[in-house]
Amino acid sequence: MTLNDHGFTAGVLPAQCPSRTVLDHVTSKWGVLVLIALSQQDRRWSELRRVVEGVSEKMLAQTLRTLEADGFVHRDAQLTIPPRVDYRLTDRGHELAARLLPLMDWIASNADEIVGEQAD
Amino acid sequence: MTLNDHGFTAGVLPAQCPSRTVLDHVTSKWGVLVLIALSQQDRRWSELRRVVEGVSEKMLAQTLRTLEADGFVHRDAQLTIPPRVDYRLTDRGHELAARLLPLMDWIASNADEIVGEQAD
Repeated sequence: MTLNDHGFTAGVLPAQCPSRTVLDHVTSKWGVLVLIALSQQDRRWSELRRVVEGVSEKMLAQTLRTLEADGFVHRDAQLTIPPRVDYRLTDRGHELAARLLPLMDWIASNADEIVGEQAD
Repeated sequence: MTLNDHGFTAGVLPAQCPSRTVLDHVTSKWGVLVLIALSQQDRRWSELRRVVEGVSEKMLAQTLRTLEADGFVHRDAQLTIPPRVDYRLTDRGHELAARLLPLMDWIASNADEIVGEQAD
């Protein structure tokens, strides 16, 4: 299905549409940042905690569980001592990240100007 | 600035970075849907209320104020009787929408499969 099938005339993604659910996950406060962090390279838990500045343990765990359930992230736990857990994007996650990065790049390039105007 | 300047190594958009603020606005629960509705055509208030299914008066007003302050949306109030208020994307809003639409299209095309897997 495409956006058109979901009703460009009737509504913008009907409230009961699965797209709304996935959209909520992908654009959650931390979802975007975790996806971008993993699009750069595979990451261990502690590394994600560090590079996704400001995320709590609880929110990181919850975000990763949601992204894993959606099939965007693969969790690889190794039974070493100490245990080692790595996270990486799945093929689906890479497809999504390829659409997220141009958006994020545009935001990063324009944010200073946008926020600056409001401080004037 | 680009994503790289904001620290692909140090962090993913540092917590104090203006990009985080703009990202929060753009990916707010209703921000995305309002931007898409306006990328399709200019809309009156009542039309936005209808096509962005599920949005409350309060949330729509708040979302439009934020998007207007960021310079993505222009509000055009005409002193007719009854008063008529139209909303349209600015040039900056169109630039943003051009990056949002491929993401939304991908989500709309894949959401059924993603959500379906979890119901199995």
